[in-house]
This record gives sequence, structure tokens and C-alpha cells, in this order.
Amino acid sequence: MKKLNASIITIGDELLIGQTIDTNSAFIAQEFNKAGIWVQRRVAVGDVYGDIWKALDDETAISEIVIVTGGLGPTADDITKPLLCKYFGGTLVENEQVLKHIIYLFEHIYQRKGPLLESNRKQAEVPDTCTVLMNERGTAPGMWFQKMVNGMERVIVSLPGVPFEMKGLIEKEVLPRLLKTFSTQVIIHQTLLTAGIGESMLAEKIKEFEEALPAHVKLAYLPHYGMVRLRLTSTGDNKKELEKEIEGLFGQLKELVKEWLVIDEDLTLPQAVAKLLKERKQTVGTAESCTGGYIAHLLSRDPGSSIVFKGSIVSYDNQVKMDLLGVNQNILDMAGAVSEETVKQMAKASLELLKTDYTVATSGIMGPDGGSEHKPVGLVWVAVASKNSVQAKKFNFRFDRTRNIEQTAISALDLLRKEILKA
Amino acid sequence: MKKLNASIITIGDELLIGQTIDTNSAFIAQEFNKAGIWVQRRVAVGDVYGDIWKALDDETAISEIVIVTGGLGPTADDITKPLLCKYFGGTLVENEQVLKHIIYLFEHIYQRKGPLLESNRKQAEVPDTCTVLMNERGTAPGMWFQKMVNGMERVIVSLPGVPFEMKGLIEKEVLPRLLKTFSTQVIIHQTLLTAGIGESMLAEKIKEFEEALPAHVKLAYLPHYGMVRLRLTSTGDNKKELEKEIEGLFGQLKELVKEWLVIDEDLTLPQAVAKLLKERKQTVGTAESCTGGYIAHLLSRDPGSSIVFKGSIVSYDNQVKMDLLGVNQNILDMAGAVSEETVKQMAKASLELLKTDYTVATSGIMGPDGGSEHKPVGLVWVAVASKNSVQAKKFNFRFDRTRNIEQTAISALDLLRKEILKA
Repeated sequence: MKKLNASIITIGDELLIGQTIDTNSAFIAQEFNKAGIWVQRRVAVGDVYGDIWKALDDETAISEIVIVTGGLGPTADDITKPLLCKYFGGTLVENEQVLKHIIYLFEHIYQRKGPLLESNRKQAEVPDTCTVLMNERGTAPGMWFQKMVNGMERVIVSLPGVPFEMKGLIEKEVLPRLLKTFSTQVIIHQTLLTAGIGESMLAEKIKEFEEALPAHVKLAYLPHYGMVRLRLTSTGDNKKELEKEIEGLFGQLKELVKEWLVIDEDLTLPQAVAKLLKERKQTVGTAESCTGGYIAHLLSRDPGSSIVFKGSIVSYDNQVKMDLLGVNQNILDMAGAVSEETVKQMAKASLELLKTDYTVATSGIMGPDGGSEHKPVGLVWVAVASKNSVQAKKFNFRFDRTRNIEQTAISALDLLRKEILKA
Repeated sequence: MKKLNASIITIGDELLIGQTIDTNSAFIAQEFNKAGIWVQRRVAVGDVYGDIWKALDDETAISEIVIVTGGLGPTADDITKPLLCKYFGGTLVENEQVLKHIIYLFEHIYQRKGPLLESNRKQAEVPDTCTVLMNERGTAPGMWFQKMVNGMERVIVSLPGVPFEMKGLIEKEVLPRLLKTFSTQVIIHQTLLTAGIGESMLAEKIKEFEEALPAHVKLAYLPHYGMVRLRLTSTGDNKKELEKEIEGLFGQLKELVKEWLVIDEDLTLPQAVAKLLKERKQTVGTAESCTGGYIAHLLSRDPGSSIVFKGSIVSYDNQVKMDLLGVNQNILDMAGAVSEETVKQMAKASLELLKTDYTVATSGIMGPDGGSEHKPVGLVWVAVASKNSVQAKKFNFRFDRTRNIEQTAISALDLLRKEILKA
């Protein structure tokens, strides 16, 4: 079976001037990948007629499936729908079902009074050459086109750029229809997460394994904030055989990297920590200074977090450290807010206040200002407390503020993970 | 003066299977835009020789500047450097300066013992047809190529994909050199942020203004989580004239949307709130349940946050609400954790504990589980407390967990903003 290829075209000046980060493409790529569709190219173009037209020409020439997102809002800078109409040779007609849905949304959901605006009514217009994909989550419908290019069938789907709406359409309409239209190849991934070893050193350790991999299995290194994910990808026709083969290879790989293995699943570090705690029926809280609540956010953003995460005391200001966490003036005067003594006290006090099995505490200088000769930007103290012990560790990061916050959170969670495993 | 166009090519399978969100392109686009370089296309391709080659052909055909990121790591799946060498017709040679830098990094910064790995040594190899751009922040150097395509000068720059390293190279090497090589047009943006009005209604209100704009001025609508940013972009040669003109237009626009205006700068809502508080020399803290520390994170992630943000009590668990914030069992039994009574008590108690001028409190059901008939997923209570008042507001969101958390944070910060302005 031939590999099924897709391209993603995102439309909008906001992507090209960097005002918006494109998260839509990553979502589509993930979902397609799981379904055995390989996204081979992603292209972003501005709200420029000729550029959009050219992108359609280019991508339909190489991919069986082309997903277009954006350019369908109610405002005047949108040129996509008339273009699609011309590209696929049709005329714009008002779709009754879409119009009813728009009226329903405005009356019952958005609770807007007064008559429907002309710009919203126009959202019900679609080229008569497309199949309409109903968008439950918003006013702009999806549009499904089929076209022969160089004697081969192509599917082109236009979707709104609002992530919540685009996601609903991909899941409920686009993927089911694609799987009916095409037969897909099997793609299998196995991913593990390592910490404490660099990309090049890791590559050295698994060099022979990598060289011996069969041609249809690829190994990828995905470094991210001091951690490296390793991903094995296998492609073929027989799902069972592929699964059996990759299971064996993945087992070998885990054995080779066991010293640095965080988890043998495609999970983030916060998810891996939550899983460990769930298995042990234990709980965690945080006492954060420099991370300002970011670790609490990481521990609470996934569904089901409340089983393991209880709460946090964010003591960004020293007065809060004193008032709520019992860090006394003497410690602050002698050792300072960024010190072993301070983070240990923060961790111990929050353990009692939050009544958890573990707490994580952070204090550091994230920059760009606030550094000194003895305590430069990037200096961070992290502590992990449990009933029986308090461990503290010093880090020296050399990054910008955003990355220092991220790296501190990751380092703190990894220290927590190790303490959990010790117990 | 002709518009100066750029393309960005990002290399890496991780972008195409959705395992990584591309933030590099947004950064490059922002910086280029400020410098008067228009990014007209962004393309992502996998680690596939032919696809990378084709992308170079395509983009050098249309853009004066092509930035390539990724594919330069020390591991075996990288094919970019040999490809660049062939594409620009040179041979790989070991660069002495780069090698010295790599050895220095491993010895003094990474503190790795033992001899340099072959894979790291190879990072010092560069095509002899390029100008080496020293990467202070990592081992992979940037490479600057110049080439004539159809009789026109093209600059192609290859950069490592690690965001921190890429950013350093763009700022210190690439932009200064580009501005020496090309003369650029002036691009000016003016952006404002609105809340409480939808995109289509906003468009209706400013329709005449928009239609009367001169051809070289564009208006863009950037909706994001219930807020809409409006951006005016002007392009031309005479900076002073453009500035004067856009100042007048921006003034008209502000007047038209003043009812919904949050701030007349390109700031996020947390930044706008922080600015208001700074001007008033006031402080803020949070008491968060369903947002789990996310609002605290938003208020502490920007430089200089400590002037206005003092701390937070994240009471994810009801026990923490009772123990630390004085929410009593009676309230939890009668009204529940997601109620006006609970959030008001959380806001009042944290105001005293954190000793701030304002606090924001949240409690809600973020989903996907935990909803009931009377309290469905998406139900959120938000409160803002100050010395003189406690205001609470109920919201009903209809989104997925991630967006519910984001939308709750934005709604809470907007309620805070309004309370600050009332005082």
C-alpha cells in the first residue's frame, strides 16, 4: 500500500508577522499521524490571493490530502472563500442548514439581540462545488472539495482557524470521511523520555542499536529543556507484525537507556510524575517563589489532576514567605531568599499546610534583572520535602527568563520524581 | 523601494507529526517584521533529503532571504549539513574557531569529562562556501550562504532549531548582517486590544473607517479567547510621514472602539493589568482553585512582575480552601466549592493573607469530568476583592479543559481590570 500524504496550508498574516503561534498544524499532524496519514509539508501564507492560489497548486501536486485552515472569519480581510469558489469552479450559494445554525448560535448561545449582521449571514454562503461540513462550535462551516490533479484524486478541506472549532471538525467530520475515502498505511510510534543525558552522549550509547534498525523503522531524538525524548516510528501494512517487531526493538532501547529513563510512554514529565503518585496513592503540593505558580499549573492542567495535586503557596514576595511559610527574617538576612535554607523551610512549611505527601519548593533569579556577582541570573534552589526528608539542590541556568522558569519547573519535577522513586 | 521578502523553512519530522509546536517561526517573523522584512511564506518539511532540497529551490525562487532552522544536531538523523554543502557546491571542512568553542563549552559549561565525542567534533565541520555565524549558546554554528538565483542575489541562512540558540543568532548575527546587505522598507504596526465585543460586531462598528483606509494601510482582526486585537499596518519608504499618518488613523480607531478598549498597545491582558497596577502603585495576589496557579503564572512570567504580584494560594483541594482560606464546611455543603460564596470567601481571605490591594479568586469545573446537571462543565465563579468591595461573576464556558482554564484566567483578569479602573 502506498503511503498516504497530506499537506497543511495555514492562511493569515498574523502567522507571518509572528503575532500568533501556529498550534493548529501540530494538532492536525498528531491526529493524522495516529490515523496513518503522513503530513509531509506545512505551509503558512498571508492573506494574499496569489499566494494562497499558488499554495493550493503546489500542495495538490504532491499530496493526496490538503487541509487549509484560516481565512474564513466574518471580517473583510478574508478572501479565502471567493478564492476557493473560483479555484474549484462554482458559485457561492447560501446554505440553508448553515444559516439556521448561525441564527441558532446568535439567538441561543451568544444571546445577541437584534437582526443578524450581513457579515454573519454571509458565513452561510458556500461554493456549490463543496460538501458542507457542519461546525457545531462556531459560525464558519468546513468545506470539502474533491478534484482530479494529474489524473489522481485529491481531497481539499477548508476549515476555520479558531483552534476549538477546527479541532471539532477534524475529529467529527474530516477524519471519518478521509478514512472512508482512502485506505491508509499503518504508522506506529513508541516514545520514551530520558533525563540527565545530552543528545550526543545518548546517541553514542545507542549507536549500534540505531545502525541495526531495519529500513522501515526510524529513530528520532527530540531534545527539550534538558530532557531527550526518543521515538521509534515504524511504517508498513501489517499492523500485528509491526507491533510485535517494534515491541522487541523498544524493549532493547529501554534496556540501553535505563539509567536515564523517566518513562516509557509519550508523556510529559508532569504527567509521568502524576502517574507515579497515582500508582502510590500519594499527593503533592508546591511552594513557589521564582516559578510563580507555573509548577502548580503544570500539575493541574491535565484531566484528573485533583487526585494527586492539592494546592500551592506561591510566595513571590518575601513578606509572603515570612507570613505564610515561616521563613524568618534571620534566614532572609543571612542566607537570602535564594538559598538552601529558604527553599527547605518553604518545602517543610507547605507540607504541613497543604497536608500532602510531597511538596516542591523553588527560589531563584529568573532575570533579566535582579542578579548580582554572588547570585547571578539563573541561580536557582529547589527543594523536595516528604514526611521523612528534605532534599535541596542548586542549579545554574544560563537562559532567558521564559526558559529559566521552564527549566526550573522541569528540574524541580525531576527531583521530585527521583525522591518518589527512592521511597 | 521594493518590499524585501523572506521565507522560513523549518526542518524536522517532529514538526510534521505534531510532537513539537513551532515557536521559532513566530519569533523570526516578529523580529524580521520590526526590521522591515516581510515573511511571505513559512514551510515545514521532514528530515527528507528531496523535500529539503525542493523547499530550498522553491523559496529561493520567490524570496530574497531564506532562513532554514533545524537539522543541525549532533545525532545521525540529521542530513541538513551535507545537503547544504552539495546545494551550495562546497566541501565540509573543520572550522578551528567553532571547534575551540565546542571544546570550551564541553569543558567549562557542560563540565563533561573525557574526550570529545566524534559526533560533537563533527559539529565543527562547515561547508567552505559559507560564512560561519558563531553560536555562543550552543555547539552548532549558524551558516550564511549567498547565491545568485535568476540573476538576483539571495541570502540563505541555516540555524540550529533549539529556540534559545536560534534567537541568539538571529539577534546578534543574522539581523545585523541582513540590514547591511539589503536596504529595507519601513513597516509600522499599531495594535490595540478590545474585550466584550465579537469580531463581526466590531467590524460593523468600524466598517466606514476600514473602507476609507489608504491602500498601503491594512487593518487586521486578531480574535483570541473572547478578546479581539486590532492591528493597523502601514508600509512605505518615509518613516516620519508614515508615523504621522498612522498616528492619526490609530487615534480615530481608538475613538470608535473606546467602549471596549482594554489597552492601546500591543500588550497581553496580564501585561495591561500589570501596567495599570504599576501606575497606581498597587499590588495583586490570587486564590485559585480551577485555574491551579495559571493566573499567578500569567502575572509573574514577565520581567519586573515582583513590583505588582505578591503571591497566591492555590486551593485546588477543598481541604486547602478550608484550612488556609477559611471557607467553612457549611458553605461547601450548602453552596458547594463552585459558588459565589466560596469564591468571595477565597478572595477576601487571600487579601488579608497576602496583604495586597487586590486579589482574584476562581472556582469552576474545567472538565472533561466533574460536571453535573446543575453544575455543568464550564461553570466558573470568579471574584475580585479589594479593601472596599468584593465582586463576583458567574461564567458558562463551553470549551475543552485547556481552553476553559485559559478563558477563566482571561475573564478573571478582565474583571480585575474593570475593578481597578472603577477605584
